[in-house]
Amino acid sequence: MTSEEFPAALRAVGERGYHHLHPFHVRMNAGELSPGEIRTWVANRFYYQRSIPLKDAAILSNCSERDVRRVWLHRIVDHDGAEGVEDRAGGIEAWLRLAEGCGLERGSVLAGEGLLPGVRFAVDAYVNFARTQPWQIAVASSLTELFAPDLMAERLAAFRCHYTWVPDWAFDYFQSRVTQARVDSEEALSLTLRWCDTPELRRRAVGALRFKCDVLWSLLDAIAAHAC
Amino acid sequence: MTSEEFPAALRAVGERGYHHLHPFHVRMNAGELSPGEIRTWVANRFYYQRSIPLKDAAILSNCSERDVRRVWLHRIVDHDGAEGVEDRAGGIEAWLRLAEGCGLERGSVLAGEGLLPGVRFAVDAYVNFARTQPWQIAVASSLTELFAPDLMAERLAAFRCHYTWVPDWAFDYFQSRVTQARVDSEEALSLTLRWCDTPELRRRAVGALRFKCDVLWSLLDAIAAHAC
Repeated sequence: MTSEEFPAALRAVGERGYHHLHPFHVRMNAGELSPGEIRTWVANRFYYQRSIPLKDAAILSNCSERDVRRVWLHRIVDHDGAEGVEDRAGGIEAWLRLAEGCGLERGSVLAGEGLLPGVRFAVDAYVNFARTQPWQIAVASSLTELFAPDLMAERLAAFRCHYTWVPDWAFDYFQSRVTQARVDSEEALSLTLRWCDTPELRRRAVGALRFKCDVLWSLLDAIAAHAC
Repeated sequence: MTSEEFPAALRAVGERGYHHLHPFHVRMNAGELSPGEIRTWVANRFYYQRSIPLKDAAILSNCSERDVRRVWLHRIVDHDGAEGVEDRAGGIEAWLRLAEGCGLERGSVLAGEGLLPGVRFAVDAYVNFARTQPWQIAVASSLTELFAPDLMAERLAAFRCHYTWVPDWAFDYFQSRVTQARVDSEEALSLTLRWCDTPELRRRAVGALRFKCDVLWSLLDAIAAHAC
């Protein structure tokens, strides 16, 4: 794979395999999910959200390039937030507010009540991937973000239109990710294009993105199997 | 080991095994090292400095407590610095300035020229420890910081008195660590006392600190063996 073919190969993976095509997401955006199904999704997806900083810290820990670590570090702060800074509550807190807006108890979500084994396995596989793969390849696996802003914008509109029982204050996470995922994915794409600089690394990067699509897809499989 | 005995047991490890007692450090602080020996130490110790963020990111990656991660994160910034922020150049950059002040080429230090196998093995063992141990235990291993401020203050005075061929602008790292290590070690101690809350965890924490003392000691062994 040449460096010219590389970006298109990455995009093709997402266009074919990103979870916007998953039947559960299609039903979500069409307004067809019951409140119980929405809650199952929100509570289970929280396990993914809370694991993201572990994944990003694993990438840092494997990366001996200081300047790359400087670029990557903000992701941990974006999710974890910072103590005593009101507008830096972080993505994990924002997802907990979504959960509360959907009628879930914060404590039960934090305790992992109702967490499905298939969701746990998929998310743990992702964190383990970042821990054990070269950092360039783990960075490439995060490129599902390239496709996130569109899905997030569509999801936000769908919630406001179809799931009016969820209050608008619950949507901070969706809203902030529309712009944040755009910035993050450009950053990750530029790192991937720069550092995956051999045919072998490019091949592995495409495989990593396919793997990450499988993680997200499998997460919805587990949720859909339980919810239906 | 009870929670009452725990802090004293930790301090006893450092008092007996911290590298301030190592013959090479004793000679350094007595002004007995040649410029070549100082340079060997600075160039090799850089491998430790540059690996610290990898160790701290490994701790983050293994820690599922968001509030602990929030407390720990600044360590990565302290060493890596932040882009375009003059006074946040970071500890790695400060050590490179020390190296330049000692007459070493920045590029050769960054390339790891003259890096001794024993130093590499010891430092890699430390990073690997943080990657594979529970985060509480890895945090405890960082408690050599409890003993760092005294050594750092003594070292700073020794350099100014005995090694006058090194210019004062090279000492930023020593200077900043005197206060920084005090804050960091209090933070790490309080996390260790709180989270190592069983006799078994306390026993492992003491072992972790002993291991870390061995890392630092072994690093000086390798340097002394080469320099003498």
